[in-house]
Amino acid sequence: MDNLPMIAQPDALIAGSGFHDDSHPKQTLGSDFDHAMMRRCIELARRALGRTSPNPMVGAVIVKDGEIVGEGFHPRAGEPHAEVFALKAAGENAGGATIYVSLEPCNHYGRTPPCSEGLVAAGVAKVVVGTVDPNPLVAGGGIARLRAAGIEVLVGVEEQACKKLNEGFIHRILHHRPFGILKYAMTLDGKIATTTGHSAWVTNKDARSEVHQLRAGCDAVIVGGNTIRQDNPYLTSHREGAHNPLRVVMSRSLDLPQNARIWETAEAPTLVFTEKGANPDFQELLRNLGVEVVELTPLTPDKVMAYLYERGFCSVLWECGGLLAANAIAQGAVQKVFAFIAPKIVGGAHAPTPVGDLGLTSMSEALSLERVEIRVVGSDCLVEGYLPSHQL
Amino acid sequence: MDNLPMIAQPDALIAGSGFHDDSHPKQTLGSDFDHAMMRRCIELARRALGRTSPNPMVGAVIVKDGEIVGEGFHPRAGEPHAEVFALKAAGENAGGATIYVSLEPCNHYGRTPPCSEGLVAAGVAKVVVGTVDPNPLVAGGGIARLRAAGIEVLVGVEEQACKKLNEGFIHRILHHRPFGILKYAMTLDGKIATTTGHSAWVTNKDARSEVHQLRAGCDAVIVGGNTIRQDNPYLTSHREGAHNPLRVVMSRSLDLPQNARIWETAEAPTLVFTEKGANPDFQELLRNLGVEVVELTPLTPDKVMAYLYERGFCSVLWECGGLLAANAIAQGAVQKVFAFIAPKIVGGAHAPTPVGDLGLTSMSEALSLERVEIRVVGSDCLVEGYLPSHQL
Repeated sequence: MDNLPMIAQPDALIAGSGFHDDSHPKQTLGSDFDHAMMRRCIELARRALGRTSPNPMVGAVIVKDGEIVGEGFHPRAGEPHAEVFALKAAGENAGGATIYVSLEPCNHYGRTPPCSEGLVAAGVAKVVVGTVDPNPLVAGGGIARLRAAGIEVLVGVEEQACKKLNEGFIHRILHHRPFGILKYAMTLDGKIATTTGHSAWVTNKDARSEVHQLRAGCDAVIVGGNTIRQDNPYLTSHREGAHNPLRVVMSRSLDLPQNARIWETAEAPTLVFTEKGANPDFQELLRNLGVEVVELTPLTPDKVMAYLYERGFCSVLWECGGLLAANAIAQGAVQKVFAFIAPKIVGGAHAPTPVGDLGLTSMSEALSLERVEIRVVGSDCLVEGYLPSHQL
Repeated sequence: MDNLPMIAQPDALIAGSGFHDDSHPKQTLGSDFDHAMMRRCIELARRALGRTSPNPMVGAVIVKDGEIVGEGFHPRAGEPHAEVFALKAAGENAGGATIYVSLEPCNHYGRTPPCSEGLVAAGVAKVVVGTVDPNPLVAGGGIARLRAAGIEVLVGVEEQACKKLNEGFIHRILHHRPFGILKYAMTLDGKIATTTGHSAWVTNKDARSEVHQLRAGCDAVIVGGNTIRQDNPYLTSHREGAHNPLRVVMSRSLDLPQNARIWETAEAPTLVFTEKGANPDFQELLRNLGVEVVELTPLTPDKVMAYLYERGFCSVLWECGGLLAANAIAQGAVQKVFAFIAPKIVGGAHAPTPVGDLGLTSMSEALSLERVEIRVVGSDCLVEGYLPSHQL
C-alpha cells in the first residue's frame, strides 16, 4: 500500500474538468429523484453486461407514490424487454404509475410485441426515458405512440450515462460495425514489453481486474498471432459467472503453437481468422479442439469487424500488439482507447510500444483523443478517450 | 476547452492515496496556525527559486500576539539568511515573539554569523522549525543551541513540504552529487517524437509552461547532441525575471550545428562537455560565442554530475533523448522522473521513446517509481515519482 499513486491538489484537478461534450450541455432535466431512478435503471441494465448483443442493455423501474413497485432488465436477445419484466413485477400497481426506462420503448413487432403498446395497456401515467432509439429511422416512434395515447413523456434524464451504457450498440446501429476498443498496458516509458518481449506483468492486480471487467462487457476480444506466441494468454474475464467474450485470433500464416491456452474451449469459445488455404493441417487440428476457423482474404481488421457485425456483435476489444493495433486504427476499427500506464521504467530502444506505424511524420498529425478521463486504478493510471472520428 | 481531460470519480481517486512515506507518518505536530505560518515560510523561500545554490531556499516568519511582525527569505548564497531579514523587519517586536523557519537555523560562522546566536540575542521566545539540517554532522546543533539558551523549540511542522522544497539541496549534502530530474513528454502510445524525429509539440501550452517553471527551479538543464540537432531548443524558463538554468550539452563528437539557438548566450549561459581533443576548431568557435567548453574523458553522466556538484549545483534537469536518459539512470544520475503524457496517438514501430536500453529483460526487473503523484496539467497528464534508490 505504500506506493499507491497520490493525486496532487485534487481540487485543482476537478476544477477545469467536467464532461466535455458540446452537443450535450449539462442536463438539468428532471428532479433529483428522476436522476436517481434512471441511475437505478442503468444499474439494473448492467446485470446483463456482455449478454444482450445484438440488443442493447436496458433497465426499467416503475414508481408509484414515491415507491418502487417494479423493476426489470433485458437479460438477452430473444427474451422480453426490460419494461415487460418491470410491468409484470408491478402488476396492478402499474396503473397511474411512472415508469423509468434507460432507452426509448420499442414500437415495432419483433420477437416480442412493442413495449409502447404494453405501457399503454398497463395504464401508466408517465414515462421517463434516458435516451431515444439510436436508429434515426425509428427514433422517437415509441415516444410518439405513448404521447398519442395521452401519456406524459420526459426524455433525456441521465442521457449521457444512458448513451455510454450502450455505446457499442449505438455505434453498431449507426455504423454497421461493432464498436472497437483498443486496450493496452505500458510502462511510464512507453513499453508494452521488454526488448526480449517479456510482458507479464506491466500493471498490478487492480488494473488487470479492471481489464477482466472490460472483457466481460465485450462480445469479442482480438489478438494477433504474436500475442499468442509471446504471451500465451487466456483472454477470459476470470470471474465466476461473468460473461466471457469470444476469443478471436487473426493469423495469416497460422504459424501458432499447438498447445496454446486459447485453444482450450471448455471455458470460453475461440475463433481463428486466417487467409484462404493457410495451413490446412493446423486448421483441422484447431477444429478438432472445438475452435472455429474462418477464412477471410485478405485478412484485415475491417473485414474482421464486418464479419463480427454480421454475427450480431456490439463491442470488440483489441488486445493486440502494436502492428495490428496500428492497422485497426488506420482502418477505423478502433473508436476508443483504454491505456493503462504503470509508473515504472523498463527501458529499451527497440522494446515494443503500443501502436506501430500510422504513417504520421509530424507531431501535429497525431490523433488527439477526445472526452479524455484519467483514473487511478490501484497503483496504476488509466487514460480513456475516444478517437477523433467517434461521435457518441 | 472542450477536450480537457476529466478526472473520473474524484473521491475514489483520493481515497486509497495519500503521502506514502513510511518513515514520516502524518504530522499532527503544531496547531493549524503553526502549519499556516510554515506554509508561508515555504512561499517566501520559493521567491528565490533557482538562485540559492549551493545554499537551500529558506523562509522565516516572526509572529507576535497572533500577528506577523516580520518576514524574510534567503535570496542567494553570500547574502544573509532568512532569519536575519525577518529579525530586521520585526525590530523590537522580535523580543518574546515566535519565529517560524523552514530549515533549522545555522549554528556556525560561515559567510554570515550563526542565526542561532542572532535569535538568542533578539530575545525570541519560541522557534518553530520545519526540518532539521540535512547534514548528519551538524543536524540539531542550531536547535540544541537555542534550547540551551532557554528558548522553546518545536521541530517538524510541515516537515515533508519543507524537505521537498529543498530536495535538491538535501540530496547534494547527503550524496555529494546534484539531484537529478528526468523530464520527458510523450504521447499516449509512448513516443517522444515521430519516426522522422519531429517532436514540436507533444504537449500543450500548460504543460510546456510547467516545464519552464521546472527549469526555473533547477541549476542546470542537460541535453545531448541529438536534441540540439533535432529540436534546436532554447532551454530557457521563458519567463520575465525567472531564473534560467545553465544550459548543458553533452557531446563526444562536437558534431553540432554552428547556428543553434543554445549558442546565443545573451539570455542564458551555456556549457558544453566534450572529450579531450574533440573538434578543436568548433571548441574555438563556441568559446568565441561565449559558450564554456569543458573536456571530460570519458564523458559520462556521472562525471558531469560530479563536475556540477563541485560547481555548487543542487539540482539538474535531464531533458535529453532516450539514449542519454538511460545512461543517466544507469549511473544513478536521476532521482526523480517527471513524465508528461499527452492523450494522443502518433504511432511508429521505431519512433523514439523516452528511455533507451537499461539491460532489463524481464518486466519484473522494471524500476517502480515511489511516492507517485498524478496530476492533470491543462489537457495533458503529469506523472511524477522517485526512482527506487532515492530516499527523501
